[in-house]
Amino acid sequence: MSKELRTVSGMRPTGPLHLGHYFGVLKNWVELQDREEAYFFVADWHALTSDYADPSRIRHNIAEMVKDWVGAGLDPEKCVIFRQSAVKEHGELSLLLSMITPVSWLERNPTYKEQQQQISNKDLGNAGFLCYPVLMAADILMYRPHGVPVGEDQLPHMELTREIARRFNYFYGDLFPEPQAMLTPAAKCPGLDGRKMSKSYNNGIFLSDDFAGIQEKVRGMFTDKARLRKSDPGNPDVCNLFPYHVLLSSPEEQAEIRRGCTSAQLGCVDCKKIFLKNLEAFLTPLHERRAALDARPGAVEEILAAGNEKARAFAMSTMALAREKMGL
Amino acid sequence: MSKELRTVSGMRPTGPLHLGHYFGVLKNWVELQDREEAYFFVADWHALTSDYADPSRIRHNIAEMVKDWVGAGLDPEKCVIFRQSAVKEHGELSLLLSMITPVSWLERNPTYKEQQQQISNKDLGNAGFLCYPVLMAADILMYRPHGVPVGEDQLPHMELTREIARRFNYFYGDLFPEPQAMLTPAAKCPGLDGRKMSKSYNNGIFLSDDFAGIQEKVRGMFTDKARLRKSDPGNPDVCNLFPYHVLLSSPEEQAEIRRGCTSAQLGCVDCKKIFLKNLEAFLTPLHERRAALDARPGAVEEILAAGNEKARAFAMSTMALAREKMGL
Repeated sequence: MSKELRTVSGMRPTGPLHLGHYFGVLKNWVELQDREEAYFFVADWHALTSDYADPSRIRHNIAEMVKDWVGAGLDPEKCVIFRQSAVKEHGELSLLLSMITPVSWLERNPTYKEQQQQISNKDLGNAGFLCYPVLMAADILMYRPHGVPVGEDQLPHMELTREIARRFNYFYGDLFPEPQAMLTPAAKCPGLDGRKMSKSYNNGIFLSDDFAGIQEKVRGMFTDKARLRKSDPGNPDVCNLFPYHVLLSSPEEQAEIRRGCTSAQLGCVDCKKIFLKNLEAFLTPLHERRAALDARPGAVEEILAAGNEKARAFAMSTMALAREKMGL
Repeated sequence: MSKELRTVSGMRPTGPLHLGHYFGVLKNWVELQDREEAYFFVADWHALTSDYADPSRIRHNIAEMVKDWVGAGLDPEKCVIFRQSAVKEHGELSLLLSMITPVSWLERNPTYKEQQQQISNKDLGNAGFLCYPVLMAADILMYRPHGVPVGEDQLPHMELTREIARRFNYFYGDLFPEPQAMLTPAAKCPGLDGRKMSKSYNNGIFLSDDFAGIQEKVRGMFTDKARLRKSDPGNPDVCNLFPYHVLLSSPEEQAEIRRGCTSAQLGCVDCKKIFLKNLEAFLTPLHERRAALDARPGAVEEILAAGNEKARAFAMSTMALAREKMGL
């Protein structure tokens, strides 16, 4: 099957990936690599926008992220896996696009003020943070994709990317198609304590967690807080565990669990056992692929080197066109 | 003589260079190339910060600027003449430095608000314009110079460059020396009409002007406005022509002119003739060097290609250190 459509997406290497990343993003990427010409990049420059004061973990996180990706099913033979900072053209295009991007567009970016207010342990008044949507637009437009797989929170960035593409095309002539957001239906995947699953809350199940550790975590996991005894009927719709069954258990199993829970026949301990079984079945192939990668020294570097080269070749072709359009 | 000190400077290719550029900047550069390891770059990315809406003249201006430089006496065997956008590392370093540069430092940059207010025919609300001092800091710090030849108007940028260097060194470890401003004593070189010599005022004598055109311009040039007849004594200190004698005539000649003018023995027409003679003597070698360059097709491209390569080699060594310091 020839791949007529092209797409691109990236993730900041700020720590190990958890189930929320898998069901929210990676699952979708793995499906995309079969249908489209797909570029996936480790956004290490973006990690600097907030972690500039201590970037010491970034290098380690990059390798871990590639392992998580390949573990999750990204296949370097089917898609291009690369490192943003290895393709300098992203920096160049970002610089060129900054010339035509009004500061006011960046200041009204909803996530800008929001994150500045919410994140109090880091100073986000740096120019890199203000300008990161320009870098993001460069990351995307570089590959002239028809669409970009994103979550709802990224819609303002996609809109800004399209506005920047339009402005470039208006000033210098048509080059960039306006990429559409390919919205993934939001997968509900709460943290173990019911809050959003997040590394900083320490409430996640990570793709690289071993099963001993996972059993420990699941034992302490919240379910339906109103169900104090097994003989109380539970309510899957307010239970913190049930969303995982939606993600990992078959429809038949889900129906059975719902019946058992609401009739007080299935207790939370047993329900967690079903979850653990299905989670193990789900994670085993991920762990196997990860182990295969770990067994081959230099494998991650090889994947990135090959991907960097492919991405660079495409980026150079875009930049040649962009420079020509701009008369440089 | 070994060159122990290193310096760097650049100019935006926004049009042909005039006498004001020569006496304010180029004369100093020509002297520097003998004493120091000197990098001089055509700042084409900086030209975009204000001319983004119509960059069509930039390519032409780049070649013209190199001809003006070589005409003025810059020798590609003695210094490195290169094009900013050909050394992508400037873009990369600018991006990295933007991570550690507070937006507030950029907003309080005195030339930022000033130019936004003064320049009304262009929209300078673009991110590239806000962030150009970061790009400038990258241009400078890339070559880790001890000092940078600048005019007084550039002092705030030099201060900002030092602040950014300090912040980098503080976060990631010592890499960048804090470059000092090497102030050139301001050469007084007014325009033909007494205002600042500027392409946009159309009141300049350009290094590439031919003598026929120059004679025409000098005929219409202002002198001492209060001196209406040759029989009136003139005042060189308010005369618009006399500063040119300070730049181009010998001290003896200057003394003689002053005497003749204040005693009403030397008229403005004759005074202009002395100026034209000295200007011709000054410009002839510049025109000869320029003509030699014009006679060799591809000469400018060759100069830039060789310079780009040398600059890139140095820039790559700096970036390897910077990335290592940052743990990338």
